[in-house]
Amino acid sequence: MIRRNLSTPSRECMVALDALIQEIIATSGVKEGICTIFVPHTTAALTINENADPDVQRDILSHLRTIIPKRGDFHHSEGNSDAHIKSILVGPSLSLIISEGKAHLGTWQSVFLCEFDGPRTREVWFQIVPC
Amino acid sequence: MIRRNLSTPSRECMVALDALIQEIIATSGVKEGICTIFVPHTTAALTINENADPDVQRDILSHLRTIIPKRGDFHHSEGNSDAHIKSILVGPSLSLIISEGKAHLGTWQSVFLCEFDGPRTREVWFQIVPC
Amino acid sequence: MIRRNLSTPSRECMVALDALIQEIIATSGVKEGICTIFVPHTTAALTINENADPDVQRDILSHLRTIIPKRGDFHHSEGNSDAHIKSILVGPSLSLIISEGKAHLGTWQSVFLCEFDGPRTREVWFQIVPC
Repeated sequence: MIRRNLSTPSRECMVALDALIQEIIATSGVKEGICTIFVPHTTAALTINENADPDVQRDILSHLRTIIPKRGDFHHSEGNSDAHIKSILVGPSLSLIISEGKAHLGTWQSVFLCEFDGPRTREVWFQIVPC
Repeated sequence: MIRRNLSTPSRECMVALDALIQEIIATSGVKEGICTIFVPHTTAALTINENADPDVQRDILSHLRTIIPKRGDFHHSEGNSDAHIKSILVGPSLSLIISEGKAHLGTWQSVFLCEFDGPRTREVWFQIVPC
Repeated sequence: MIRRNLSTPSRECMVALDALIQEIIATSGVKEGICTIFVPHTTAALTINENADPDVQRDILSHLRTIIPKRGDFHHSEGNSDAHIKSILVGPSLSLIISEGKAHLGTWQSVFLCEFDGPRTREVWFQIVPC
C-alpha cells in the first residue's frame, strides 16, 4: 500500500491524479494488473472524467450543488452534510487497468480527487495488484 | 468467494460491515492485497462514509428520498423504482485495500450496506485478492 | 487487458454485457478472482441492476433526466454536460467476483453499459485478476 498527500485549494474542486498514478505504477514495475485507488475521507471522492475543457468540471460541481445544496434539511451539526452525500454518490474507490506498465485511460479521461469540503490536506491510497 | 447473510431492520438503513470484513480478512491470512465486496441485489448498495454521528446517515437517506422520491413518474409495477435508482447511484461493489493483514479505512470511515427496500435478508459477497 | 467494441442504439440506453463478460472469463480459464471492467469514455458508465422488467431501465434513465436535465445552467459548449454528470454519478469502473470459472451475479442482476450521449461505438475494457 502506497500513500500520498495532496492539498486541495478550495471548498469544491477536482484535482487530477494522472501523473501521480503513472509514477506510482512505473515505480512498482508491474506491467499487467489493476491499480485500486482509495480516498480515506468522508467528504471527498474519486472519479474519472474529462480534463480538456475546464467548463466540464465547473458544470459538474455546479450541478451537484443544485441537487445537493449546502443548506438543506440537514441535522448533522458540522454543516457539511452536502459534502458527505456528494462523496457517497461519486464514490470513495476506483480500480484502473494496468497494461504495458501504465494505467490505461481513454483519450479524454483523467482521474480526479473530488474535494467537497476543502481546502484541506487529503490522503490518497494505492494498491497495485499484478495479474 | 465468501458469502455472508445479514438482516436489515427497516425499508431504508445503513448497516456497518467493518467487523465482518476484518474477520474475513483475518481468517484469510492475506497481509497485502485488496478485498472486493459485492452486493448481489438490485435495491441495495455498498458505500463508505462516517459512522460517528448518526445524523450523517439520517441526512444521507433523507436527502436521497428528496431527490429520488418513492412516488415518482415510474412505470415499474413493483413500486420500488426509487430503490433501484438509489442503488445505481450508490453502487453495487467496492474494493478496499488490505495492508498489514487488515482493511485500511480512514479515521471516520465505515463500510455500509445501504438498504433501500427492506426489511430483508441480504447477501454480501467477498473476494480477497493478494498481491 | 481485453478490449471489446459495442454499438449503442440511442442517446440514452443500457446495454447488457453479461454474455460478453462470461465469454471473456471462460476464455481466460481463471476459476477464482475478480474481473475489473472499465469504460474509457466520459459520457458513458457501468452499472449493475435488474434486467427482467424493461420498465426498470426506463425509470432509471427517465429519473436521471429529471434530476440532471439536458438543458441546465451549463457552460460546456458541446451541450452534453448532462451526460458527463450522469457518468460520474453512475461510475466508470466495476469489479465482479469470479468463482467456479464465472462472474457471480445475483438472480436479478445484469451488468450494463449506460450510454448517456449516443448513439456511438463504445469500447469496454476488461482485466482478469486471479487469486
